[in-house]
Amino acid sequence: MLGGNGQFVADHAAGAHQVVFVRSTQAHARITGIDTAAADRMPGVLGIFTAADLGLADTAIPALTTPDPDFTAATSLTVAEQRLAILASERTHYVGQPIAVVVADNRYLAEDAAENVAVSYEPLPPVIDAEEALGSTAPVLFDHLPDNEAARLEYEFGDPAAIFDVAAHVVQDTYRMERHGAVPLECRGVLAEFDAGLGRVEVQTSTQVPHMVRDAICAVTGWSRQEVAVAVPDVGGGFGTKANVYAEEIVMAVLARHIRRRVIWIEDRQEHLMASAQGRDQTHRARLAVDGDGRILAWDVDFVVDIGAGSLWVAGIVANTAVHLMGPYRIPAVHVRGRAALTNKTIVAQYRGAGRPEATFSLERSLDAAAAALGISGAEIRRRNLLGAADMPYPRPIPYRDGVPIAYDGGDYVACLDAVLLALPESEAAACARENPDHLIGYGLASYLEATGRGPHETARARLLPDGQFEITAGAASAGQGHETVFAQVAADALGMPLARVRYVASDTDRLPEGVGTFASRSAILAGSAVHQACGELIALAAQRAARLMGTEHADYVDGRFLAGGQALGWDELAGAMRIGGADEGGAALDVTTVYRVQTVTWTMGVHAVILGVHRRTGIVRVLRYAVAHEGGREINPRIVEGQIVGGVAQGIGGALFEAWRYSPSGEPTSTTFAAYHLPLTTDVPDVIVRHLHVDTPVNPIGVRGAGESGTIAVYAAVAGAVDDAVGGGHRVTTTPIQTGDLCRSLARVAS
Amino acid sequence: MLGGNGQFVADHAAGAHQVVFVRSTQAHARITGIDTAAADRMPGVLGIFTAADLGLADTAIPALTTPDPDFTAATSLTVAEQRLAILASERTHYVGQPIAVVVADNRYLAEDAAENVAVSYEPLPPVIDAEEALGSTAPVLFDHLPDNEAARLEYEFGDPAAIFDVAAHVVQDTYRMERHGAVPLECRGVLAEFDAGLGRVEVQTSTQVPHMVRDAICAVTGWSRQEVAVAVPDVGGGFGTKANVYAEEIVMAVLARHIRRRVIWIEDRQEHLMASAQGRDQTHRARLAVDGDGRILAWDVDFVVDIGAGSLWVAGIVANTAVHLMGPYRIPAVHVRGRAALTNKTIVAQYRGAGRPEATFSLERSLDAAAAALGISGAEIRRRNLLGAADMPYPRPIPYRDGVPIAYDGGDYVACLDAVLLALPESEAAACARENPDHLIGYGLASYLEATGRGPHETARARLLPDGQFEITAGAASAGQGHETVFAQVAADALGMPLARVRYVASDTDRLPEGVGTFASRSAILAGSAVHQACGELIALAAQRAARLMGTEHADYVDGRFLAGGQALGWDELAGAMRIGGADEGGAALDVTTVYRVQTVTWTMGVHAVILGVHRRTGIVRVLRYAVAHEGGREINPRIVEGQIVGGVAQGIGGALFEAWRYSPSGEPTSTTFAAYHLPLTTDVPDVIVRHLHVDTPVNPIGVRGAGESGTIAVYAAVAGAVDDAVGGGHRVTTTPIQTGDLCRSLARVAS
Repeated sequence: MLGGNGQFVADHAAGAHQVVFVRSTQAHARITGIDTAAADRMPGVLGIFTAADLGLADTAIPALTTPDPDFTAATSLTVAEQRLAILASERTHYVGQPIAVVVADNRYLAEDAAENVAVSYEPLPPVIDAEEALGSTAPVLFDHLPDNEAARLEYEFGDPAAIFDVAAHVVQDTYRMERHGAVPLECRGVLAEFDAGLGRVEVQTSTQVPHMVRDAICAVTGWSRQEVAVAVPDVGGGFGTKANVYAEEIVMAVLARHIRRRVIWIEDRQEHLMASAQGRDQTHRARLAVDGDGRILAWDVDFVVDIGAGSLWVAGIVANTAVHLMGPYRIPAVHVRGRAALTNKTIVAQYRGAGRPEATFSLERSLDAAAAALGISGAEIRRRNLLGAADMPYPRPIPYRDGVPIAYDGGDYVACLDAVLLALPESEAAACARENPDHLIGYGLASYLEATGRGPHETARARLLPDGQFEITAGAASAGQGHETVFAQVAADALGMPLARVRYVASDTDRLPEGVGTFASRSAILAGSAVHQACGELIALAAQRAARLMGTEHADYVDGRFLAGGQALGWDELAGAMRIGGADEGGAALDVTTVYRVQTVTWTMGVHAVILGVHRRTGIVRVLRYAVAHEGGREINPRIVEGQIVGGVAQGIGGALFEAWRYSPSGEPTSTTFAAYHLPLTTDVPDVIVRHLHVDTPVNPIGVRGAGESGTIAVYAAVAGAVDDAVGGGHRVTTTPIQTGDLCRSLARVAS
Repeated sequence: MLGGNGQFVADHAAGAHQVVFVRSTQAHARITGIDTAAADRMPGVLGIFTAADLGLADTAIPALTTPDPDFTAATSLTVAEQRLAILASERTHYVGQPIAVVVADNRYLAEDAAENVAVSYEPLPPVIDAEEALGSTAPVLFDHLPDNEAARLEYEFGDPAAIFDVAAHVVQDTYRMERHGAVPLECRGVLAEFDAGLGRVEVQTSTQVPHMVRDAICAVTGWSRQEVAVAVPDVGGGFGTKANVYAEEIVMAVLARHIRRRVIWIEDRQEHLMASAQGRDQTHRARLAVDGDGRILAWDVDFVVDIGAGSLWVAGIVANTAVHLMGPYRIPAVHVRGRAALTNKTIVAQYRGAGRPEATFSLERSLDAAAAALGISGAEIRRRNLLGAADMPYPRPIPYRDGVPIAYDGGDYVACLDAVLLALPESEAAACARENPDHLIGYGLASYLEATGRGPHETARARLLPDGQFEITAGAASAGQGHETVFAQVAADALGMPLARVRYVASDTDRLPEGVGTFASRSAILAGSAVHQACGELIALAAQRAARLMGTEHADYVDGRFLAGGQALGWDELAGAMRIGGADEGGAALDVTTVYRVQTVTWTMGVHAVILGVHRRTGIVRVLRYAVAHEGGREINPRIVEGQIVGGVAQGIGGALFEAWRYSPSGEPTSTTFAAYHLPLTTDVPDVIVRHLHVDTPVNPIGVRGAGESGTIAVYAAVAGAVDDAVGGGHRVTTTPIQTGDLCRSLARVAS
């Protein structure tokens, strides 16, 4: 229900001075001077601060994740240390990079002053192509590095080279997914204030990872954890771009303490399209060998990720791509190489899927190519290769990113294919053709496999409130996906109490000092399980208290009450006993914090089917029918799971058909308005049929599988397959977003 | 240290709509209409709300304290139910009573609109004299009551009537202390906001009693405790006027929920001088019998308190006056009657001393009168009557207000007299006379006895923070008297840890759901002891945890560490063990709430000595020397105790010489500016010599006695005695503030 009660960062602007960032206009340049004098004298300007003014010279945000050593060893993973400046003072690395910060009485004055800060640049040659960046002739972008390689890995099993030499069919191509990413309704925003009484900076930021932001602020500044508190108000969408620690967050915290003022920065849309972390931007050179029946024999991919001026998540993105390249299929021999390149483009974070859509695209497109070569259908080649119930649990010869040997815990992937074919049979294309005579109709399929619920842990806290209600919080922050509902449900279930008695409170580092965050389809699994575990520990603690109150050694918890030798005590009575005048007034809080640890991920598999039309004259693609069948776990809240899937499909359609952040040869971003960066409209997204195949997982105590990203992963490949089917004549989509112009040319060729 | 870091209610005004109260201009009238139409149409006005609009018709703030039954029985105490309207809708009872509330974009617009709200009145005869109010011909002010008597009590022991008939000397007079009270630097202020997410109203109010405010809001509205949270920001002085629950606080909470807006009301100074609760306003008809040596034989007082239109504290004020009338003297026979009257003056709360200064004034003035009659000095008559070490503990034949039999736990009250005589000997008057040839010099003395640390209980909470520091909070709210320092010291002592590791956090009902408050010189004793006790319980709880971590049954706490069988564990290690990856990650919070209960009060006794000059021509009084000797307990922070004493003396000088809220015959307040209500200036207050006689008390675990009010109590009587001494010729001050005009007349008479 939309009640209009959300309180986002910008809703707390009252009383704050407005902050605007002065950003680099140069993709790659040496800064020869920053003249703030004229701007400083403008009316309403409190001050203008550079890296030196804030003590931030020579600082960089530390890496957020450390690759697992077993995975690192198995894949020869190497990661270069990144040192992108928090506020650039010597060299700029992308257009939009923060250089200075203006504080003024209002936004208008701050914007005006920012325009009057004169930054002098000495241009350096920009590097905007990842493969060029990795070449030996490219300028090296960071002085501390020998080259522009940010990470690399390689793994191999089953001797693929030998197999390629003898296989019946080999298909190969280069697949590219253009740079695009999250465009949440709410841009980023940070409010920071110094509480002189507590001697700490209080930050509210629109983030998915408050604890990482807190830790990064501490790491950069040297402050203790007690000197900064990070809280998350309502957030209007994250999708991974907010699962990042930003320079702006650190600058705002430092600024608030430096000037002892309440300060707010609200990113505007143009800024967001230029300076918020982006995603994808991968190129895969892929080769697939199949036998005469279309069974996969070997698979070889060499991919490059363009992480722009940097990514705190580079190890994760490269590893995620590499792991998911194996898909839900029986593949006996694999060789994967991956590299990440530093370029003079905007920084990169984990956009919904984070390597999975890119991996799925090259694998599924290769399967379609093989099917075409063999003259069999897309359904048939998938059926012949998908893992079945008898294969489970299915191991792979390399460990997962967490170092634990991979073992797919699925049900029956073939059954999932059957389910989507039943939900949206290819025969439905005929009806679509009748309804859309101006369009060529095509049918596409794509499978995906998603590792969900990455550990190693998440925290939760459960406490009994004085009125007998419960307050629950977890380390993962909501970006608007309904944690308040879902985790309250988990708690109510675990406690055996009505939902109305449970109050879920958003994560903040003060209330819950440790936590990980929301990303990688992990919230329901990790935070949900942590909430479940915390409630169990709260019951155990309360049972001791209840036993003492009843004068017994032990009390059992049954149906929301503690029972011992004919006596019974409820939560209300426990809470009442602690109140002034109660049987046990005061006492230790019934308040537990727990750390839920998961050994490894659980796998969510699914198949997407799509029917679309390609307009015969314009080449414009219209998605007509869409179906998803997926092996999910227990659905805590089916409406929220369905919302995740449907929203994910919409976002995937955007990536498949419209969205691309493009850069000019000099590194100027050219997609900084919604006229240039085309998002899918409601008219671009049909109703989505969702078939939920419940496959329990023993990996976590509440039996859930992640579904936060699965809606998006397979869309690109499915849409590409359907476009090829519609256009016919051997048309092959190898790049997204699919270009109308390309389709027009193909249509003309096919027609001629 | 003044760091300018305080954050008062008004500092949180950003983003709030401004509220102004429409107040009664009539002391006593029937309301025949409230026309808000014109005001409602004014620019920037969000709305104007009357009692009916807010569902507050026929509501009244419930009484805050229930008299103890044993005390009630011993003193035949009766208390009438008061039903002063929260927003007047039918009848007004004093000028300044809230009638409606205006919400506007800013304060200017709100003020303008408030002036355009047309309230129609039908005047009723005002009652502005307490003794008239209690007469049979006075109009009865409240329909539900038979007369204007708000409370009455009477007690007697030792057959005083018989003694008066035969005593060597009887002195009698009528003593009056005019209405005056607290004028803190910060007026009142309330900020209220509805949090739609939590479904609760969040109130910040400049109060000494947040829990009482919360409870009153719940009682009036029927909301549960979870639907309202009351927090106290920094407060710029309370002195009892903020130890009250106000109509404005309840209206603001209801308003915020009604209109779902953040609203703030900041009382202006004129409003404060008209509508904030006032004090004193007592008349005592007193008679003292002494023997030929000046030893007290019997003591008879009939007093009347004017509580204006009402006082939530009426029982307390009447009882406090009655109990303190016995002073620190040996008095074998006493008869006390007291009544409280409802009049058409501003409401009354517990102004610093709350009955003690009034009781002390009539007793000490009577002693001075007896001394004069006998021709002995003020020092001598006091020495002959004060209790000595051999008398302790000294019982009284009536119980204290808490129902516990009175037993003074003093050291040696005679020694205290000696101490002040040594600190400021009468011989010093000669030097004063030389320095001030235009002044007649006088010397005055007055003793007081103060019951401090009234129970029954106070709460505190202590918890270990994740970084090994401690967070402490207590139910008593600071009004600026340094709780952050004092209670942190108590906690650091109790924990045996450095002060820097303890963080005291101001009381709020969310953090600590139960508490009593700051008034009646109770904070250090009750909240201090509660903090001490909470720390003890935290240690005990942590010792169990430490023992478990060390694999032992039991651990001892020595010098900030837990010891068991050669092993040792500190708080840092305990905190570390609970962190992710720690030896005992997660777990139950080391967080205890405690209820400290005290059986009864502890008594603080002191003697004040003053030398002052009365200007020979103008009668203007100039206080030249001032000394206080008092039997205090352990001083947690000597500078803060001294600050309390010195500030109390300054406030007492104001009451003795300057301050009076006067009303015209029609009930119009005539002292609503600082031109009419004269506060003491720094030039009116000399340096104060403070002699602290440490007398331990076993009543509480930290050995402290209250000192919050003791600075003020004896000032009126001491100054009056010195003025009489200076003027000579039998001049008798019987009323405060002492009028320059009266002194001029006496000077003329004495000179003639």
